Amino acid sequence: MATINDNYLKLPGSYLFAEIARRVAAFKEAHPEADIIRLGIGDVTQPLPPACIEAMHKAVDELASADTFRGYGPEQGYSFLTDAIIEHNYKARGIEIASDEIFISDGSKSDCGNIQEIFGTDNKVAITDPVYPVYLDTNVMAGRTGTLQEDGHFAGVTYLPCDASNNFAPELPAERVDMIYLCCPNNPTGTTLSRAELKKWVDYARENQSVILFDAAYAAYITEEDVPRSIYEIEGAKDVAIEFRSFSKTAGFTGTRCGYTIIPKTVKGRAADGSLVEFNKLWNRRHTTKFNGTAYIVQRGATAIYTEEGQKQVKETIAYYMENARIIRDGLQAAGIEAYGGINAPYIWLKTPNNMPSWDFFDKLLTEVNIVGTPGAGFGPCGEGYFRLTAFGDRENTLRAVERIKNKLHI
Amino acid sequence: MATINDNYLKLPGSYLFAEIARRVAAFKEAHPEADIIRLGIGDVTQPLPPACIEAMHKAVDELASADTFRGYGPEQGYSFLTDAIIEHNYKARGIEIASDEIFISDGSKSDCGNIQEIFGTDNKVAITDPVYPVYLDTNVMAGRTGTLQEDGHFAGVTYLPCDASNNFAPELPAERVDMIYLCCPNNPTGTTLSRAELKKWVDYARENQSVILFDAAYAAYITEEDVPRSIYEIEGAKDVAIEFRSFSKTAGFTGTRCGYTIIPKTVKGRAADGSLVEFNKLWNRRHTTKFNGTAYIVQRGATAIYTEEGQKQVKETIAYYMENARIIRDGLQAAGIEAYGGINAPYIWLKTPNNMPSWDFFDKLLTEVNIVGTPGAGFGPCGEGYFRLTAFGDRENTLRAVERIKNKLHI
Repeated sequence: MATINDNYLKLPGSYLFAEIARRVAAFKEAHPEADIIRLGIGDVTQPLPPACIEAMHKAVDELASADTFRGYGPEQGYSFLTDAIIEHNYKARGIEIASDEIFISDGSKSDCGNIQEIFGTDNKVAITDPVYPVYLDTNVMAGRTGTLQEDGHFAGVTYLPCDASNNFAPELPAERVDMIYLCCPNNPTGTTLSRAELKKWVDYARENQSVILFDAAYAAYITEEDVPRSIYEIEGAKDVAIEFRSFSKTAGFTGTRCGYTIIPKTVKGRAADGSLVEFNKLWNRRHTTKFNGTAYIVQRGATAIYTEEGQKQVKETIAYYMENARIIRDGLQAAGIEAYGGINAPYIWLKTPNNMPSWDFFDKLLTEVNIVGTPGAGFGPCGEGYFRLTAFGDRENTLRAVERIKNKLHI
Repeated sequence: MATINDNYLKLPGSYLFAEIARRVAAFKEAHPEADIIRLGIGDVTQPLPPACIEAMHKAVDELASADTFRGYGPEQGYSFLTDAIIEHNYKARGIEIASDEIFISDGSKSDCGNIQEIFGTDNKVAITDPVYPVYLDTNVMAGRTGTLQEDGHFAGVTYLPCDASNNFAPELPAERVDMIYLCCPNNPTGTTLSRAELKKWVDYARENQSVILFDAAYAAYITEEDVPRSIYEIEGAKDVAIEFRSFSKTAGFTGTRCGYTIIPKTVKGRAADGSLVEFNKLWNRRHTTKFNGTAYIVQRGATAIYTEEGQKQVKETIAYYMENARIIRDGLQAAGIEAYGGINAPYIWLKTPNNMPSWDFFDKLLTEVNIVGTPGAGFGPCGEGYFRLTAFGDRENTLRAVERIKNKLHI
């Protein structure tokens, strides 16, 4: 009989958001009059920039006529988009990226999930705890881990704890690791790594011939000067780092789908015969074999954010969300709740009052002030005792939520 | 040092279309005045149906306002699209598919390539020869094969030869196989399997507890009554078959990207502990972990083909291509060249005159009559001595190409 990939059975069900939905539904049934405000999910709410809308209408029209119709495009993306990205996000910051070192995709979730395929299954994986679950789950599926232990950790994975005690900056691991996932600005903690902290990781990777898988999906939210927008701002990173970027949070593309991955040709791994192989070549083979390019319309929309008006519009929306973040952060502090993040990222990571377990705080927030957030424990054992609020709501609801926390929550 | 996935090194470079491009470029440089007609690539040329254009404009406008904005959608696809597909392509043909047995994606190439991930690496794979390269390459990458042999076959794979001697209908394999890739209507041969032939495969899969991976990307081109549009028209197929469909050739979505996969919950595989596991559950876990849904705009466009005017428009374009197919087929026969396919598929698979090797015929066609096609040998060893022409060109070029073959090619 055909057999299954048994590694999938190591994964627990994806209970976090299902469990949130279940508890919210039960509360609503018991209290149909409750005015619930959702600050839980990491999805944007503001419309696409007008420049994108205009570009996409134009692209749709092109597909309506045989003269301007576009069929299969290059799997790696159209040069009108890759050129704009390289110019704007890299060259403008002094980073040289060649046109065959960038791969357009349908989003960072796909890229972060698929990248591990080009690595050997014998590599040792390091992830932060708490963490965006895709890094871990995809390595479990590929057989790069053991089973789930009672402490909530998978055997064979190196976890890098991040909490208030280390200012959410992971320490270098005691044992050698090969693949290091770093998310900066971080989801869920909303914190970042400074240039000096990131350099420590690049140096580690160079010394240990490891590869850093750097998820910079929230780079557009960075406001402080000392926080690198790209890992390639760190000397030597082009030899050891793969970078993921996304239009999802940058320009509201969560439902429009576009992202990209940078793989410098200098990032190499060892083959069984001892030879060195460029990961860029392997990824190109994967990308052209298992993917057929991002929709033309979407690539045109993404390109529009690099126009003058596109940049202005994108920055306005980000400023809107970041003002929400400030309101939440200040409100929490006024309420006597310790809060992190929210300065270079749209996430606020709060310490639950009196070390209350994350899920207890979830229930308290829901029942006392009708606000939905995300329990930190859902992102890993080190998230226990923390809680995530997001700045992606609209202004009015954000203000109302903060008023409720300040005035009605019994801490 | 980080290691690579060594299986990738078993793959030869993807030389087929690169080699075609090289030879065409060299010929053009030597003969800049040549009026080259391309009937090689499997890409559409006609514009999207007006119904899709209208629906996509409307969807773009929805994204321009916070009230109607759409962020993350369900990874499995919006119900407005899945309901329309189930109703139109399955229920209307007497097939019951549940709403959680369908998964919308960015196209069949991704789905056909990714599906093998949920299977164990110990499964024995069977593919036809010639074949769409994605089935084979993705199994090589996953380590389900040995290395490439001198005869052009990978060790450990069961090849099912398809040529004129068996009317392009593969024989059941002598040894047991677990995963069987069938493409019907077939790319590259343009031929199909009758109901009786397909039943033979479903029965084999049921007896051997194998899974059929049925690629029906060209189903919309079927004209003959005896050819099933879906494998689920065959009794018992819902226990053993996964079906892939696409909007690429159905509605001109090659550059717009949308497809879907049907996995009935009755299709199961064996876990290491002997228990039976639904492939549907495993795929759902993969799809929600490594993919974040198809663009909202694209799903709205795809849905529009199921309206009355959408259906009319889609059928007109397909009829246009199929008239091209008839012109090519008739023209080849008038020129004394044996030709297959082109009746239920947009591909014509011709036998090269005097058993000429595929690449020699490529050169002959290019130099004598300035027509570009695809050498059959590029699709597998059994494609040697065959050649693919496609019906996706425009009418005028198709007519001119056929005139050249009839009147100017020296056979």
